[in-house]
Amino acid sequence: MQGILYGIGIGPGDPELMTLKAVRLIKEADLIALPQQGATKEITALEIVKQAVDLTDKPLLFLPMPMTKDEQVLNSSHDQAAELICTQLQQGKNICFLTLGDPSIYSTYIYVHNRVLAAGHKAQLIAGITSFCAVAARLNSGLVEREQMLHVIPGTYNSEDFSYLDLPGTKVIMKSGKSIGKLRDELYKRGLHMQSGMVECCGMKNERVYPTLENIDENSNYFSLVVVKERMV
Amino acid sequence: MQGILYGIGIGPGDPELMTLKAVRLIKEADLIALPQQGATKEITALEIVKQAVDLTDKPLLFLPMPMTKDEQVLNSSHDQAAELICTQLQQGKNICFLTLGDPSIYSTYIYVHNRVLAAGHKAQLIAGITSFCAVAARLNSGLVEREQMLHVIPGTYNSEDFSYLDLPGTKVIMKSGKSIGKLRDELYKRGLHMQSGMVECCGMKNERVYPTLENIDENSNYFSLVVVKERMV
Repeated sequence: MQGILYGIGIGPGDPELMTLKAVRLIKEADLIALPQQGATKEITALEIVKQAVDLTDKPLLFLPMPMTKDEQVLNSSHDQAAELICTQLQQGKNICFLTLGDPSIYSTYIYVHNRVLAAGHKAQLIAGITSFCAVAARLNSGLVEREQMLHVIPGTYNSEDFSYLDLPGTKVIMKSGKSIGKLRDELYKRGLHMQSGMVECCGMKNERVYPTLENIDENSNYFSLVVVKERMV
Repeated sequence: MQGILYGIGIGPGDPELMTLKAVRLIKEADLIALPQQGATKEITALEIVKQAVDLTDKPLLFLPMPMTKDEQVLNSSHDQAAELICTQLQQGKNICFLTLGDPSIYSTYIYVHNRVLAAGHKAQLIAGITSFCAVAARLNSGLVEREQMLHVIPGTYNSEDFSYLDLPGTKVIMKSGKSIGKLRDELYKRGLHMQSGMVECCGMKNERVYPTLENIDENSNYFSLVVVKERMV
């Protein structure tokens, strides 16, 4: 019998934000797969899960998946990762692919998922806590209520054009990273800095919380998330 | 010592999608609070939690919170709910307020949260799995990747004006309920019906999955969620 691939959302960092389903499937898995995107991220996912599940004696499969915007390099690494996974599925292994946050939202996993499905194998998404819900909890404040819309913006792709700030409702800017200085300046210009908050590395050891964007660090981490509110919720 | 109020996101329906933190806090709680919004919803939240945590001998506090758009009725019910909670917090009770999905996204809990904080008590949000992440998992398909934006639209407030469908990226329309027929017609008109999916009562016993919007039920449940993709992810 062929194995099943599970794309497991492990949440944003706090191991207690893993779901019961994620914990069960990881315990039951024959193999844990994880992207190797440079030392930090790989260790991050493992470190989170290890605090909730005993991974001793659990075989690990590291999949080289470089962080780049080069389409050709990306496609080739996704093809290779999917091939490695399919080989294991054919041997009847059930595999948990660990992914931070939720697998449907900007995850590296989804490219492998789609390829594995296209190859005729079984693959399932297991929902996880998104970084923006965890950030809202850390800021101790709601994101949207009643008629308000919620707009989730990938920061690295929108570092020059801030017209998304014109949209009605709440804006969540994910992974601003290097462009956080520009975003802060734009929010000041629009008078929105006092109704914006930021959390760096939410739920991790090096977490930093900024209730407003007054005193933010321009050299903030890649895992920073900014919430911009239309008005106070 | 004063108690703490926890706004617990219990996820969309599947009890296994509760987080380890939600389960622990509910087990430790002195009191479980939940909104009484008509028989169905009240039972829903309890039924979900009961499958993961033993609630025998756990005191329950039902808070009358009518589902209406009448501001005055809403404010008054939120004031009363917050007062009832504050009285219990003053007696040193730790309280878990159960809320479907995540407490920062269109939850009834947030109004009580803000009032309890304003009254000088401690209150914390505990992130939960959002309905749209669970729906993406059920449709077995990603929501956004790379440069795509994600727009979350409260359906009941946008049942006539569909201009949000012009926004670039993926659209998630929550709780379309009665206006699902109009939304479907609009998606047909725009040629988007085949790249849209819907899940009714995700994770619940009466769940129904529609991979496209071709054959949807006009009388779909309040808990229906529609995903509209810009292009196939």
